[in-house]
Amino acid sequence: MKDRLVIFDTTLRDGEQSPGAAMTRDEKLRIARQLERLRVDVIEAGFAAASPGDAEAIRAISETIKDSVVCSLARANERDVRAAGEAIQSAARGRIHTFIATSPIHMEKKLRMTPDQVVEAAIASVKLARQFTDDVEFSAEDAVRSDTDFLIRIFDAVIRAGATTINVPDTVGYAIPSLWGERIRELIARVPGSDKVVWSTHCHNDLGMAVANSLAAVQAGARQVECTINGLGERAGNASLEEVVMAVRTRPDLFAVETGIDTTQIIATSKLVSSITGYPIQPNKAIVGANAFAHESGIHQDGVLKNRETYEIMRPEDVGLSSNRLTLGKLSGRNAFRSRLTELGIPVESEEQLNHAFSRFKALADKKSEIFDEDIQALMSDEALLAPQEHYRLVSACFHSETGEAPRAALTLAVEGEERRSEATGSGPVDAGFRAIENVAQSGATLLLYSVNAITTGTDAQGEVTVRLSREGRIVNGQGADTDIITASVKAYLNALNKLRSGAIKLNPQAGTV
Amino acid sequence: MKDRLVIFDTTLRDGEQSPGAAMTRDEKLRIARQLERLRVDVIEAGFAAASPGDAEAIRAISETIKDSVVCSLARANERDVRAAGEAIQSAARGRIHTFIATSPIHMEKKLRMTPDQVVEAAIASVKLARQFTDDVEFSAEDAVRSDTDFLIRIFDAVIRAGATTINVPDTVGYAIPSLWGERIRELIARVPGSDKVVWSTHCHNDLGMAVANSLAAVQAGARQVECTINGLGERAGNASLEEVVMAVRTRPDLFAVETGIDTTQIIATSKLVSSITGYPIQPNKAIVGANAFAHESGIHQDGVLKNRETYEIMRPEDVGLSSNRLTLGKLSGRNAFRSRLTELGIPVESEEQLNHAFSRFKALADKKSEIFDEDIQALMSDEALLAPQEHYRLVSACFHSETGEAPRAALTLAVEGEERRSEATGSGPVDAGFRAIENVAQSGATLLLYSVNAITTGTDAQGEVTVRLSREGRIVNGQGADTDIITASVKAYLNALNKLRSGAIKLNPQAGTV
Repeated sequence: MKDRLVIFDTTLRDGEQSPGAAMTRDEKLRIARQLERLRVDVIEAGFAAASPGDAEAIRAISETIKDSVVCSLARANERDVRAAGEAIQSAARGRIHTFIATSPIHMEKKLRMTPDQVVEAAIASVKLARQFTDDVEFSAEDAVRSDTDFLIRIFDAVIRAGATTINVPDTVGYAIPSLWGERIRELIARVPGSDKVVWSTHCHNDLGMAVANSLAAVQAGARQVECTINGLGERAGNASLEEVVMAVRTRPDLFAVETGIDTTQIIATSKLVSSITGYPIQPNKAIVGANAFAHESGIHQDGVLKNRETYEIMRPEDVGLSSNRLTLGKLSGRNAFRSRLTELGIPVESEEQLNHAFSRFKALADKKSEIFDEDIQALMSDEALLAPQEHYRLVSACFHSETGEAPRAALTLAVEGEERRSEATGSGPVDAGFRAIENVAQSGATLLLYSVNAITTGTDAQGEVTVRLSREGRIVNGQGADTDIITASVKAYLNALNKLRSGAIKLNPQAGTV
Repeated sequence: MKDRLVIFDTTLRDGEQSPGAAMTRDEKLRIARQLERLRVDVIEAGFAAASPGDAEAIRAISETIKDSVVCSLARANERDVRAAGEAIQSAARGRIHTFIATSPIHMEKKLRMTPDQVVEAAIASVKLARQFTDDVEFSAEDAVRSDTDFLIRIFDAVIRAGATTINVPDTVGYAIPSLWGERIRELIARVPGSDKVVWSTHCHNDLGMAVANSLAAVQAGARQVECTINGLGERAGNASLEEVVMAVRTRPDLFAVETGIDTTQIIATSKLVSSITGYPIQPNKAIVGANAFAHESGIHQDGVLKNRETYEIMRPEDVGLSSNRLTLGKLSGRNAFRSRLTELGIPVESEEQLNHAFSRFKALADKKSEIFDEDIQALMSDEALLAPQEHYRLVSACFHSETGEAPRAALTLAVEGEERRSEATGSGPVDAGFRAIENVAQSGATLLLYSVNAITTGTDAQGEVTVRLSREGRIVNGQGADTDIITASVKAYLNALNKLRSGAIKLNPQAGTV
């Protein structure tokens, strides 16, 4: 019987610290539900003390999620730990994850505390956290650059104070596998009471080794890995959940552990996170990139056909990649649509929602000859985005561009239900559309990023546009999908403006928390 | 004095095997020149026997490059080795890289050869290769799944036959660092004459560990790493050059080697490869992703400002990321433009080329208020793409779309200099534009991918569009850049059609060569 490797997903916390990846409460809930479907053991839902919005999202996730532990991050101080404890109160199983920096450079320059003060703060926080839950994790921030004897001292102290998981992070992405494994092994061997806790690691990818470092820790005895979908996270990101899970599964000869993950949900989860955060996945990304499986490339090589094992070490269906992706068309009925949603793991909450989605599906099928799974996912994604606080809505649009003239846009917008017309010219039709919106909205926002993903192939592909706006330190991503890329762009811009107006978005919390 | 770690770049060979990344001779030459500027030790320029176009590109690179070794891949047979030898003939320093599979599954199912036959073929190829050059590399394909005793036997044999570099590839991306290091160490210890050759590794990233495996090999004694820019390559790609190089540089305490790489050329090389192949770089990619350095995210955190080392282990300027990216505007003159090109490492080959580029720069500056380095790179990229075989050219375009109507495009194209008008409707203006082109071109090509990168931020950002077309097994990427995304799309489609017409593009060679 193999040990269980606990998969701790921090997409909603460390992943959200990526620039512009801040999510609304509803977006976090959708991802949390999908993470539960993926069967992650622990969902780090946020950092309760960072903002009221973050606390509210953790509370909502705690009320909804039943199968996964729901966790909040907290610095090692009373205010943070209380905020975390209150946010996870209604969870079926809740965890508080408290941390403090232990490296000389962080203690001196950032915390301005002595090592003794750091140990005291850690003990006090763990004890307080235990008053809210018996599942308490402690992290030593920047452990990679901390003194081993000091780590042993603080870990011993927090275990005695009641910590049940001890996390060893490589906060700056500085480790290499051989030494990282050695370090974890030494800590487990030398910390008194180490057999009473679960050892964990949290690795960053600055030098491209987050996954290898995490797995070296597992070989050295760690039984929890902290990771994110698509490797999202600060700077170059965290260890990627899908790579860690598939490595363990593909090499059972090397790893004495197994995860509880339903790997067939990997692709759906990856797409959902990419679509909500606006972070694209490069084609040559391991596991979830469009090229990861040779048979997906459109080139069926002789060698692969002769014997799949010659070049493939994993099967595409193991990660939920279906080779038969053409699913519905113009003539598909309501039941076919509903059952495809179920197969794709997309929840339908009411008959009204289904009816509304189905009518949009029919409108899409009029414009696009073949409807793929990705189209349905985008449509439902878009559907879910339409719901909250729709201050601005696109009623109709007209775009004209001609060589030698400035492109023009004429829009009719509904502003709180009242129709307004606006026209503008720009350096391209997208620019003209954005200017026409700003004539009405006067938002004062700055455009940080504009990106387009073609969701499917063929000339009638839908485009999914992400627009990232910032105003007064708040950064939001808006999304829109349409077969017309200009219309998709305008929808995305309006979606971003609607999000900027809603109170749910918080400032990006401080960098490098763990 | 540290050992030299030989950096062997295979972007032009293994990288080119990514779907749709096939390049023209001129594109390969541009990348090769940039790789020389980056000071890679060896440029694997292609696979001479794969196609006449590939052989021609290797020949052109051999004639141009002076500082790096130029290498051609060759299967272990007479025809391949002769083709490679002829292609590198004019190189200042040329290498032949010959390979054959050594794992039971590949020998049986793919090669249908006995182990004895495989050893004989390897010896014969190395001996023949030595008649062309004294720099001969031998690779054991799928070494990761090969029997160690058999590897020792074949490596001993090829060293005696004259091989000077022995490469141990993880062809399927199956290794983990600890075992991969052990394996390399055992091979070096047990192969007779191992001290007379350079040991090399070539790792794939299917489980996300290509870089960590390569570095484990270095710690075990390997002194050459095969890698690609941006980790491009088959399936999930190869070890990424920038990550390997920066890891060695950032951890001199752990690696007893140093590279000859000019790391300040890393970002420019990464962008050039991304732009030519149409492969985007995800923001959370290590080293070259837009988020890799915290200070680039637009959020200057307290911790970073207080003390840079708290969260940054590398300096952005070390990889050639300039914080001052705003460079030129409407009023900049010809000399400022020329000197900025020089600073960006963009070669200007003639006064005509400079004049032409400068007039396009002025046209862009009329449309766009701030011109960034990225704009200039895109413009020069576009400029270089215009040169060859311009069968189709866009003369003028008119696009119109309006809610409730099908979007319309009316184009005037020059076909071999003769003007043709065409109109079409589509599901969006891009679709309408592509259909209008196809009314004239009747190419029969299939659209595989459509992608947009906004090159800079702000609503007047330029868009760079990649269009991937396939026809009869040939796959090409076309690029176009413009402040108007629809115009950029039409330009990209025409560029792809022009490439499909040109004879220089070859079929994608067989998968999994090393």
